[in-house]
Amino acid sequence: MENPLPEKNKRWKIKLHEIIYEADTPAGKLFDVILLVFIIASILLVMLESVASIDLKYHFWLNVGEWIVTVLFTIEYIARVITVKKPWKYIFSFYGIIDLLSTLPKYLSLIFAGTHALVALRALRLLRVFRILKLARYLGASNQLATALKASRAKISVFLFAVVIAATIFGTIMYLVEGEKNGFDNIPKSIYWSIVTLTTVGFGDIAPQTPLGQFIATIIMVLGYGIIAVPTGIVSAEYTRSTNNEEEQKLKKEQSNTVALNTQSCQNCLAENHKDKAEYCYNCGQPLHIK
Amino acid sequence: MENPLPEKNKRWKIKLHEIIYEADTPAGKLFDVILLVFIIASILLVMLESVASIDLKYHFWLNVGEWIVTVLFTIEYIARVITVKKPWKYIFSFYGIIDLLSTLPKYLSLIFAGTHALVALRALRLLRVFRILKLARYLGASNQLATALKASRAKISVFLFAVVIAATIFGTIMYLVEGEKNGFDNIPKSIYWSIVTLTTVGFGDIAPQTPLGQFIATIIMVLGYGIIAVPTGIVSAEYTRSTNNEEEQKLKKEQSNTVALNTQSCQNCLAENHKDKAEYCYNCGQPLHIK
Amino acid sequence: MENPLPEKNKRWKIKLHEIIYEADTPAGKLFDVILLVFIIASILLVMLESVASIDLKYHFWLNVGEWIVTVLFTIEYIARVITVKKPWKYIFSFYGIIDLLSTLPKYLSLIFAGTHALVALRALRLLRVFRILKLARYLGASNQLATALKASRAKISVFLFAVVIAATIFGTIMYLVEGEKNGFDNIPKSIYWSIVTLTTVGFGDIAPQTPLGQFIATIIMVLGYGIIAVPTGIVSAEYTRSTNNEEEQKLKKEQSNTVALNTQSCQNCLAENHKDKAEYCYNCGQPLHIK
Amino acid sequence: MENPLPEKNKRWKIKLHEIIYEADTPAGKLFDVILLVFIIASILLVMLESVASIDLKYHFWLNVGEWIVTVLFTIEYIARVITVKKPWKYIFSFYGIIDLLSTLPKYLSLIFAGTHALVALRALRLLRVFRILKLARYLGASNQLATALKASRAKISVFLFAVVIAATIFGTIMYLVEGEKNGFDNIPKSIYWSIVTLTTVGFGDIAPQTPLGQFIATIIMVLGYGIIAVPTGIVSAEYTRSTNNEEEQKLKKEQSNTVALNTQSCQNCLAENHKDKAEYCYNCGQPLHIK
Repeated sequence: MENPLPEKNKRWKIKLHEIIYEADTPAGKLFDVILLVFIIASILLVMLESVASIDLKYHFWLNVGEWIVTVLFTIEYIARVITVKKPWKYIFSFYGIIDLLSTLPKYLSLIFAGTHALVALRALRLLRVFRILKLARYLGASNQLATALKASRAKISVFLFAVVIAATIFGTIMYLVEGEKNGFDNIPKSIYWSIVTLTTVGFGDIAPQTPLGQFIATIIMVLGYGIIAVPTGIVSAEYTRSTNNEEEQKLKKEQSNTVALNTQSCQNCLAENHKDKAEYCYNCGQPLHIK
Repeated sequence: MENPLPEKNKRWKIKLHEIIYEADTPAGKLFDVILLVFIIASILLVMLESVASIDLKYHFWLNVGEWIVTVLFTIEYIARVITVKKPWKYIFSFYGIIDLLSTLPKYLSLIFAGTHALVALRALRLLRVFRILKLARYLGASNQLATALKASRAKISVFLFAVVIAATIFGTIMYLVEGEKNGFDNIPKSIYWSIVTLTTVGFGDIAPQTPLGQFIATIIMVLGYGIIAVPTGIVSAEYTRSTNNEEEQKLKKEQSNTVALNTQSCQNCLAENHKDKAEYCYNCGQPLHIK
Repeated sequence: MENPLPEKNKRWKIKLHEIIYEADTPAGKLFDVILLVFIIASILLVMLESVASIDLKYHFWLNVGEWIVTVLFTIEYIARVITVKKPWKYIFSFYGIIDLLSTLPKYLSLIFAGTHALVALRALRLLRVFRILKLARYLGASNQLATALKASRAKISVFLFAVVIAATIFGTIMYLVEGEKNGFDNIPKSIYWSIVTLTTVGFGDIAPQTPLGQFIATIIMVLGYGIIAVPTGIVSAEYTRSTNNEEEQKLKKEQSNTVALNTQSCQNCLAENHKDKAEYCYNCGQPLHIK
Repeated sequence: MENPLPEKNKRWKIKLHEIIYEADTPAGKLFDVILLVFIIASILLVMLESVASIDLKYHFWLNVGEWIVTVLFTIEYIARVITVKKPWKYIFSFYGIIDLLSTLPKYLSLIFAGTHALVALRALRLLRVFRILKLARYLGASNQLATALKASRAKISVFLFAVVIAATIFGTIMYLVEGEKNGFDNIPKSIYWSIVTLTTVGFGDIAPQTPLGQFIATIIMVLGYGIIAVPTGIVSAEYTRSTNNEEEQKLKKEQSNTVALNTQSCQNCLAENHKDKAEYCYNCGQPLHIK
């Protein structure tokens, strides 16, 4: 009854929040598709700009396109900040920082000349694709892969650490055997070569020239060949195990009440993965749908 | 009783259909073997033609061979269209389009000069090998592999998408670090280099020259080394699972009546994989063998 | 009673047969070790001879060493032929042909000058190592690997065939896109490049230069990256299955009488893998030990 | 009662032993962290010294740093020898030899000029990291990986041996086909190239130029592609099996008394992996904690 204006204001905010943050309504879906198109367009603009021959011909139009994208992203960023109840939480969240970092460079290029290096930040826009496609969700639904990677993370870390140590020792030996005249200028470069060889990449910009160096290279390669089997075996076995566990748990779940996830996020605390029929946020207790 | 001519005509068509589309009769098998020989011969002709030194010497004979193959393939195409009950269905089927596309280029080269680019279409003839060898069938009989690939398709897609995003971000960073003077001319080329490195191909036509670039390259390679384990693990685990399922189902099947597939295809709707004793097409209900 | 001489002659032959063909007695083991040393020495001789700087200095001694090895191998070959009851069976067996082919080249070099190409045949001596080490036996004892490879052979063949077809189509496309000026001289060479790329070898002697060519190369590489998972997954799953089967069968075996293999081979028909207490050849019925 | 001095001396030794060899006490943990920092610092010094441009500028400071590290490592080595009851056992243990070899080079450089080659020995310091991080322990706790590698070691050895033989035969063939003019100077170099190709490293410093050579290279690559599946499959299957066994044994263990490992090592015989509540060394019977 009292202050109907804020009520109305609030209602408008809620509507916008639903469009921007959720993908349940047609408007929300449309917003996501449009955003996806603009993100991909902006990435293409960054790429085309870097091609000298294209930039020379179409510099003006690329710049115009870049400004259009930047202004739209700025509007979107402001809308996101306004509609969320706790703006600071969004601003310092992972996606909040990415949204800001991928919008700022263009403005900074006005103030400071030659901030060419900041172009890289614009590539961060690609990470935003994940939010729209809700890829994390998609992977999460069949989260055997995540479980497998998590379970094997520690072992793969130890394994990669062992690879780095092997590369350091082999790199030092190759530096002494081949020396500066054959491209093994110093130990860091030799280690770089060792990793290029152990991972079976083999650029060939540096290659052993002496018979002894080639013999040691042979050992490194055969070792790398045998080694490549280990992380594959670990992930494969862990994945098989997590798949089996998943199936057992699925059976258990089916016996209890079926629970589905919805695509909403709380307007108050940005928490996601609410149950499908949830009326209140499981995290902060605020109602999800304001009637 | 009335119109015995069309009956006879039909009979002739049915005979030809059996020879061309089926591999049950000796004539059908012979047809397949001859076709296989001509397809391989035609592929060899296309290859030899592209070798300048051979084309210079034997241009006339290669051209003659190419015309013989083209005329034979044209006759076969017409025969396929005539003997099938619903020609348009064949013409717009996958193999129908390939058959046409791999025959046309030679005729077009008469009308338009310099249609060199169409030579690629002739390479499509290789796809026809699959039909003759009934490889799809062969794989289908032991279709654990197909099931495994199908089950892991979605996950591998997400995974490859993540690889592409990683390549884009690393490509942009390397473009900024190495720059034009070291071969990283623009971002698309840098992304190309990133994928060359992540997939452990490593051509070496472009290679980092600065210490910082080589350090980032090291990270990309070790990452790619760890990453290669993931799709392998997925396919391996899914394959193991589908193999187990297959065995369970096989047991079930053996308890029911044994069912074998035959190599016939329906003359009416081109449907395949009929049961061995089938008299009528499971798809359109037409009889398979006209007595 | 009558003809004691042939009896004695036979006895001498039997003794020699035991030394050459079997590894049960100390003499037989010694023979194998000496043979192994000479085979490795002869391989090293072939290698050193090919190094120009070493051949220049030590040509005489390398030649002497090669003749010593050749004469010894000739004696061994003759001994093998004499002591076996059915010489022709040995001569036309796999190892019999290898033994001959790896001994002949040196003699032929006396008759014909410049038979340099035959040096490759001497490398076949390496295959003889397998016989001595009875590696096949070793692998056979734990024959899950063999079973796994056998079970997955058909699928891997189909798979590799698909890889070859993909390489042919991609090779043709790259030939048209890149053309002669960028090293893609003709279709066979382009197919060679496609396989170099699909298998993630990536020599870099030929590399795409045009943006379109690099884009197609990217697709080939990502495809190759996804493809590498398939044969690995197949072998891995088949190996797991054959391991399980193996264990089940081992349990069954242990319940029945324990059976071990001995290292003898029949003097009459060259059959191997006799049971440990076998007195007669399971293949031809001849006694294994003549008392 | 009698000779209280040695008692006190012993007490001091015991304290030091606990700090150096164990990671149970705060002092022991601090010692490990400091040692880790110095080892990494010393590795970085060796690397930086090898970079000509850095060595030119900061030669003096690098030398000073190297001497500080060397003196500290010497003190640590002496402390290790003194506090252990059986010094010779430590001196000739794996880590004892590494500790000595990684400390000596700097002293030798005073006596002999130009002992540049000994710089490699300093890289051995990296191996010391393993001791501090007790990585072996970490891997041991989840020792399915170790079991899997152990179980598949024999098969992978046979497999790698087969790879070496294949490389030798292919190397010899390629030497004959391509010859000296295309970089295949001699058989050892050709074998080096074969291994570079079979392992999919593909440097490209040597690459086949003749059509026949490229055709054989294609076969080698496709073979290597199929081969890469085998060791991966073996490790993967063995790891899956050892994981299953591990879980079964874990269940058994949980039914019996829970047993945890502690991080102490016996002062007398250097044995490790004592039970958590152990009072006496399981190896030599000496008390672990002298009260």
